[in-house]
Amino acid sequence: MKLSILGCYSATPRIVAQTTSQVLETRGHVFLIDCGEGTQVQLRKYKIKFNQIKHIFISHLHGDHYFGLIGLISTFNLLTRDTDLHIYGPKGLKEIITLQIKLAKSWTNYKIIFHELCSSSSVLIFEDEKVSVHTIPLDHRIYTNGFIIKEKPFNRKLNINKAESLNIDKAYFRKLKQGEDVVNDKGEIISNKLVTLPGRSPLSYAFCSDTAYCESIIPIIFDVDVLYHESTFLEEHEYLCTKTKHSTAKQAATIALKANAKQLILGHYSTRYGGLEGFKNEASTIFKDVVLSGDGKVFDF
Amino acid sequence: MKLSILGCYSATPRIVAQTTSQVLETRGHVFLIDCGEGTQVQLRKYKIKFNQIKHIFISHLHGDHYFGLIGLISTFNLLTRDTDLHIYGPKGLKEIITLQIKLAKSWTNYKIIFHELCSSSSVLIFEDEKVSVHTIPLDHRIYTNGFIIKEKPFNRKLNINKAESLNIDKAYFRKLKQGEDVVNDKGEIISNKLVTLPGRSPLSYAFCSDTAYCESIIPIIFDVDVLYHESTFLEEHEYLCTKTKHSTAKQAATIALKANAKQLILGHYSTRYGGLEGFKNEASTIFKDVVLSGDGKVFDF
Repeated sequence: MKLSILGCYSATPRIVAQTTSQVLETRGHVFLIDCGEGTQVQLRKYKIKFNQIKHIFISHLHGDHYFGLIGLISTFNLLTRDTDLHIYGPKGLKEIITLQIKLAKSWTNYKIIFHELCSSSSVLIFEDEKVSVHTIPLDHRIYTNGFIIKEKPFNRKLNINKAESLNIDKAYFRKLKQGEDVVNDKGEIISNKLVTLPGRSPLSYAFCSDTAYCESIIPIIFDVDVLYHESTFLEEHEYLCTKTKHSTAKQAATIALKANAKQLILGHYSTRYGGLEGFKNEASTIFKDVVLSGDGKVFDF
Repeated sequence: MKLSILGCYSATPRIVAQTTSQVLETRGHVFLIDCGEGTQVQLRKYKIKFNQIKHIFISHLHGDHYFGLIGLISTFNLLTRDTDLHIYGPKGLKEIITLQIKLAKSWTNYKIIFHELCSSSSVLIFEDEKVSVHTIPLDHRIYTNGFIIKEKPFNRKLNINKAESLNIDKAYFRKLKQGEDVVNDKGEIISNKLVTLPGRSPLSYAFCSDTAYCESIIPIIFDVDVLYHESTFLEEHEYLCTKTKHSTAKQAATIALKANAKQLILGHYSTRYGGLEGFKNEASTIFKDVVLSGDGKVFDF
């Protein structure tokens, strides 16, 4: 999985601080997650190919998470896109987008398929043979979802020489990779483990922004490899979290710890602080593997 | 008048080419004209004080002219604005903005007054004792207006020493500045021209984007001091103007010439050309005082 952070600040875009948007590349997919104002320029800046984006996930309808979507949709059209675009987001998003397209008389050449979300439980919203995407209901001022993207199990690695030496017909190699035992040319049952090794462990990535401290997400993201969790505030401003329904860095770390995440990426910073080190320092008192997101940062895992 | 170009390119924002937005400062007003995506960042970049903007004029509902508006409105709110904001734009703009505010549950602390436009004739949309703003109906694919901003006549300059030597009571000075004759302490009528000189000539600025070549605007903008006219294409692509309802640089210059403008500023460039000199060169074959707009350029006139 390759995660490119296009923007990781809260509230409003500034000259050197973009609002939330990120791209997760996994198993041939290029998923765009949130789309703050200016996202299309960030996509150009970081050379992500527009036409490979086929699925866009919008967490909620606060502007710093979606005001760049209509511009991106328009630009796709100007670039003569013809492939379908799937957009997953809260109910209401379709109305916003189609109203603007209608008033501009700029119907797209390509098809937009809206998947409007309204469930308060975690639901499967995308799945193919390689990955799945589930929502993570969050606790914010308006209806908000995070998203967890999980790779499907990889095939087992076949030792072809060993398989041939055991007189297994090539026609069975696919079954072996899928973990099944097979029968060889002599009619003997060959145990799968004799000729295969486990494939790479499937990875998972969870995006959780924006949310107050919310333990109900723990079972949904349990054992996640990489957790991006918002940390709008430092501890000194924890009192603001209740009103604004955001989290501190420590609260993000507590969720990471309780969810047994392997790594925590912090983001959605308030711009009131001079730098970002405070976020890492505070989270690191609770959870060991904390990294800071930053506009333009790329994480390979 | 001071004109700051925040963006002057067509279609989509790029790393080094912003879509249409400009600020006209005149007689204490800070008018924002059009508001492409990223305008709020451009306002920060060029240090224009957000809270001085009280009137926003939107030409039409193509994204490159207004997709930054909802973000700016939201940011005004986050900056705890409390002064009224007047927005002038095509019918439908209010619905777009209020829908997004409603779904975000982010009602503004300040009052937004929408002035929705639908007339096909030039109409007065703003006026105070110092300036007036009229629409300029343009010929584009959707309902579009340019805007002409005119200073009201300045007061005449009073020669106070001369007035006192002619025994005119101070109470009459205001009338003199307004161009009236007065009666002095001796009961004599004093001709205004004896004690005053003309004030500075009032200036006018016309913004015309987006439009096909459209002679019907000439009487509306006749004698304008500075005309900003779109020039999306060079002559080699004139055939695209009919379909897209845009103008070439030469067409812009022809309008400037026929409207007896003093200066022509070109803009709304297609990004298909390597540089901008071609626009100036072609327009200059028809009209003498042609200048190129550019993101960040400031014109004082």
